[in-house]
Amino acid sequence: MTVPSEHPKESGATGVPRHRVVIVGGGFGGLYAARALRRAPADVTLIDRQNHHLFSPLLYQVATAQLAPGEIAQPLRSLLRNQSNTQVLLGEAVDLDPGTATVRLADGASIPYDSLIVATGTRHSWFGHDDWEPLAPGLKTIDDALAIRRRILLAFERAERETDPDVRKAWMTFVVVGGGPTGVELAGALGEVARDALRHEFRAIDPTMARIFLVEALDRILPTYPADLSRRAAADLASLGATAMTSTRVTAITVDGVDTETGTGPEHLAARTVLWAAGVQVTPFGRAVATALAATTDRAGRIIVGPDLTVPGHPEVTILGDLALTPWQPGRPVPGVAQGAIQGGRYAGGRIVATLDGQTTPPFRFKDLGELATIGRLRAVADFRHFRIRGFPAWVLWLTIHIVWLIGFQNRLLVLVRWAWSFATRGRSNRLITGTPASEEPPS
Amino acid sequence: MTVPSEHPKESGATGVPRHRVVIVGGGFGGLYAARALRRAPADVTLIDRQNHHLFSPLLYQVATAQLAPGEIAQPLRSLLRNQSNTQVLLGEAVDLDPGTATVRLADGASIPYDSLIVATGTRHSWFGHDDWEPLAPGLKTIDDALAIRRRILLAFERAERETDPDVRKAWMTFVVVGGGPTGVELAGALGEVARDALRHEFRAIDPTMARIFLVEALDRILPTYPADLSRRAAADLASLGATAMTSTRVTAITVDGVDTETGTGPEHLAARTVLWAAGVQVTPFGRAVATALAATTDRAGRIIVGPDLTVPGHPEVTILGDLALTPWQPGRPVPGVAQGAIQGGRYAGGRIVATLDGQTTPPFRFKDLGELATIGRLRAVADFRHFRIRGFPAWVLWLTIHIVWLIGFQNRLLVLVRWAWSFATRGRSNRLITGTPASEEPPS
Repeated sequence: MTVPSEHPKESGATGVPRHRVVIVGGGFGGLYAARALRRAPADVTLIDRQNHHLFSPLLYQVATAQLAPGEIAQPLRSLLRNQSNTQVLLGEAVDLDPGTATVRLADGASIPYDSLIVATGTRHSWFGHDDWEPLAPGLKTIDDALAIRRRILLAFERAERETDPDVRKAWMTFVVVGGGPTGVELAGALGEVARDALRHEFRAIDPTMARIFLVEALDRILPTYPADLSRRAAADLASLGATAMTSTRVTAITVDGVDTETGTGPEHLAARTVLWAAGVQVTPFGRAVATALAATTDRAGRIIVGPDLTVPGHPEVTILGDLALTPWQPGRPVPGVAQGAIQGGRYAGGRIVATLDGQTTPPFRFKDLGELATIGRLRAVADFRHFRIRGFPAWVLWLTIHIVWLIGFQNRLLVLVRWAWSFATRGRSNRLITGTPASEEPPS
Repeated sequence: MTVPSEHPKESGATGVPRHRVVIVGGGFGGLYAARALRRAPADVTLIDRQNHHLFSPLLYQVATAQLAPGEIAQPLRSLLRNQSNTQVLLGEAVDLDPGTATVRLADGASIPYDSLIVATGTRHSWFGHDDWEPLAPGLKTIDDALAIRRRILLAFERAERETDPDVRKAWMTFVVVGGGPTGVELAGALGEVARDALRHEFRAIDPTMARIFLVEALDRILPTYPADLSRRAAADLASLGATAMTSTRVTAITVDGVDTETGTGPEHLAARTVLWAAGVQVTPFGRAVATALAATTDRAGRIIVGPDLTVPGHPEVTILGDLALTPWQPGRPVPGVAQGAIQGGRYAGGRIVATLDGQTTPPFRFKDLGELATIGRLRAVADFRHFRIRGFPAWVLWLTIHIVWLIGFQNRLLVLVRWAWSFATRGRSNRLITGTPASEEPPS
């Protein structure tokens, strides 16, 4: 089916207005929903504030100088170029008017819809301490990753020039807050950067002396994994110079470091680099949608959806990915991982196609594929529910799955080259400090 | 020879202070000078305000979404890691005190030298119109290239959303000022982006309708090449939708476009994207060096050096690359190209080694390897002085030479993959818009 692009709002022959699907968000949920609509007799509009789809599971590798940004991100236009019923709009959705069935963009434009799919995901939450955000940046976008990469690399540069031993030590101390998969992978990769990639490159400091602390409020890291895998992950981290501090809450973050509270009392970690991998809240547009539809949310703002992924009372509005609280097992919603968003996107697109065809669709069923996290070279933990693996076999599986799911053949090839290279040399190639000239950064 | 890194200022055994070589600038000149000093009984310090060496001849390919930044840049530390007599400092040199023989950095540090090599190159000059710089950015650093890439890609995004046909046309009009190699390669690559890479990706606009103007004040583009190659380059550009406007001077640049003056009268080019590839001036540190040493300069600030590349009256200070005006042929200095800087760097390093050994060095002799510029896929022009080639053979030569000279085996491999991919698909893979969220850019 081809639709002349000059008349996107009607099918030329009959003059009957075509069904308009608006998708907000080009992450896993939005992209897979758009793809599922590729043959639909509908006009699809995908709106995102970035021009690219991001393979977010590998974002920590950009932040730690392993991969280049372009290797895990692809222009949405390019991914959907052959889908003639679909238009990509670069724009930021800010509000929803269910009365006129329109999405309002930041530039004032109104985009009308018959079906709306919202998949704008979540961002970090600093637990009400918004002043912590500039001191402890989170990792959600390419720009976040480049800013973190810049901080990490500059910290070693500062240490090399620093003469005060205490300040030097603080430049070589890194705190990662949040012991979920992102925090664990970030801490492990940081350990490898310090111990392998930067080794022999400095004259005044020894990068292998860098200390990394992974702070987690619960009593173990990777709390959604079985306990033995949590233990294994902590041991793997320790072998990379990263210390898991569990049952530890962050009480303050300053330019000098982190104050924590453990069972035994307060502790101060003097560190010039603090990274945030904790807390979740929905995007402002997600919140606006919930308000406009008077939808029920949890404390993080996630919208509770029905078995067909739509908002109760609003069958025309679908919520996908980690913006949605999707029923799954008793007392346990679908986890906010890529697989949940991908499966939801395919379901939502397929449901619209079926509805246009006068058919009904059975409820969404999440197929749990398990969880998988890597901790540096040769090490990973995987929980496939019926069995669990760790160490080298888990690591090979991790590599394979990520290459297979990565979008774009060229990117697969380039990432394979990067990984093979790093594996052979223990080096990191993407160590550019970009932004303002690196030397002009204020010294603290 | 290994030097214990803890005692970089003396050779442990004898206690005699070692000769201190300070190199400012990690471009071609500085890097090749440092490498030539790798076995010197000296302490070498390389200072740069960026943490990476940049393969600048391919910078225009980053600006036009062909290559990723990391593929043409490598950390200086990494390139010099095995050179134990050499320390890399991330810092910005701001002034020189010949009395105490020290270089002062922006952070206040003073770095003493026995031999000083200055290779900080040039940046663009806006002919006294500094207000043009934000409107017509130049292309000297990775950050410049990413800013230009962002502008180019956003221009098409704006055009897609624009309803006023005149404004839309202005968003799809690109002006490149300066018809030297950078301007020609940039204009050609822009033509390919519009005609090939973005084709079929937009619904409201046709990117192949983009117009590109290359404005040159002299009567032909590539003025340092033989006239027939200039004509060939102009014809190649025309086939990519880029128009060479020669004998045309820029008189004003505004957000709306460019005012020009030709032989026949003034003309206004309505364009929202203007790129600057004209004019040259030395860096502020280069100017400070000239002042401190009372050196003779040309109008752009280039320092006139003697046959051994040192400043007359200051045999301890060498100037390299396009910061130097190096005697060559009568009335013609060594051109400010990569080969000049590389050969100068090797000579300067070798001369210091010889001097420390009590030997003298014959004057510098520049070996002219010719000039080479590419204009899109399959097309290039090359002038090897004794013979000249163009078209497909020149293009193959261009590819080979750039791959051979590119630093780092992994980068060669990755760039080959990128080029092969683009050649096969006519696509461009590095089309991320990064910086602030792309949609939040002010609309004009």
